[in-house]
Amino acid sequence: MKVAVLGTGMVGRALAGRLAELGHEVTVGTRDVEATMARGESDAMGNPPYADWAQTHQRVMLATFADAAAGADLVVNATSGRVSIAALEAAGRDHLAGKVLLDVANPLDYSHGFPPSLFVSNTDSLAEQIQARFPEARVVKSLNTMNAFLMADPRQLADGDHTVFVSGNDADAKQVVTELLRAFGHTDIIDLGDLSTARGTESLLPVWVRLYGVLGIPMFQFKIVR
Amino acid sequence: MKVAVLGTGMVGRALAGRLAELGHEVTVGTRDVEATMARGESDAMGNPPYADWAQTHQRVMLATFADAAAGADLVVNATSGRVSIAALEAAGRDHLAGKVLLDVANPLDYSHGFPPSLFVSNTDSLAEQIQARFPEARVVKSLNTMNAFLMADPRQLADGDHTVFVSGNDADAKQVVTELLRAFGHTDIIDLGDLSTARGTESLLPVWVRLYGVLGIPMFQFKIVR
Repeated sequence: MKVAVLGTGMVGRALAGRLAELGHEVTVGTRDVEATMARGESDAMGNPPYADWAQTHQRVMLATFADAAAGADLVVNATSGRVSIAALEAAGRDHLAGKVLLDVANPLDYSHGFPPSLFVSNTDSLAEQIQARFPEARVVKSLNTMNAFLMADPRQLADGDHTVFVSGNDADAKQVVTELLRAFGHTDIIDLGDLSTARGTESLLPVWVRLYGVLGIPMFQFKIVR
Repeated sequence: MKVAVLGTGMVGRALAGRLAELGHEVTVGTRDVEATMARGESDAMGNPPYADWAQTHQRVMLATFADAAAGADLVVNATSGRVSIAALEAAGRDHLAGKVLLDVANPLDYSHGFPPSLFVSNTDSLAEQIQARFPEARVVKSLNTMNAFLMADPRQLADGDHTVFVSGNDADAKQVVTELLRAFGHTDIIDLGDLSTARGTESLLPVWVRLYGVLGIPMFQFKIVR
């Protein structure tokens, strides 16, 4: 499958690397390819320069948001929530139409420091805002409730014995995402229903960020015991 | 310990019954004792009349909010979130001063149907609103992230292999609550920090109610795998 992963940060890299490893043809999308490749320092989150990562992941291509999305069968929104709509606008409405758009972003608002609050919550969600803005995309929310490394390779923790959620309005799109999740190694996959259920999974972030504060490492996960 | 459990619903009954079983002197608090005992029908949530429950729990006393709180060492807010502040006002500011106030309520707003949204969230919490209104109470938020039967007897599911959270500004009060949780059978207890961390645990409700919708039964629980 041809996959566009929008976003060059930790989440984008983890997913792009894993997708390439699984044999998919992966293009990472960024605003400005030259600037991304020229950056020589770690970013604000402590990630090493993209060019360094690209050297060890030569099968992963880099292109503008628009070029990455244009040729893709599946588009992954791995940008930070604040800029997701802008990045998807740059990718282009036409390049998203009819495609599965896997949204793993969270509406985190760091403007008042750590822990962040959410800039949309409770009676709306980022996933729904994206779907409203791009009505022809087949948005599926998933993976947003865990650390990037666990998204891509859940067996790193407790042999994968934890839960991932799926929300979306299009059953076929959810099926595509579910198969991808299984390929990553996820085994406990709960389909919560339509995209409004993303209000529930995005609302896991307020406790996630506080658990991160208390536990000190991001290698933890929610499991729904039942 | 003398415990006042404010609220005669499913949560109040589950906690009151369990506390009595553990040897505590328990008084359930209600707005109007006569009305509570006179009610002959199941309530809106399908709970049988309180009087029926009381017959099989004769050691549990029933009193007004104020009388229950007056003699208590520990007060449990097991009222529904919408009426919690009013119930605590009725219990009386003086009767709460200096006492541990275990808040298990959630700010659920059913005014737009099911699933409910939250009437306070994200940058504030019901627990913090209660603490602000009763600054001399030692508010501890806990147990609000699970079904009433699991609150009181966690070993009913997966032999108790799931997680409960504690939030509060008073370390001694959290210790009192933690010991109570252990007596109930909780083993994985995470102290998230000060009372503002209740924003995180109250935010688990939006996914909890949707999981309830999908799973069909409330016998499930969050576990933090780590």
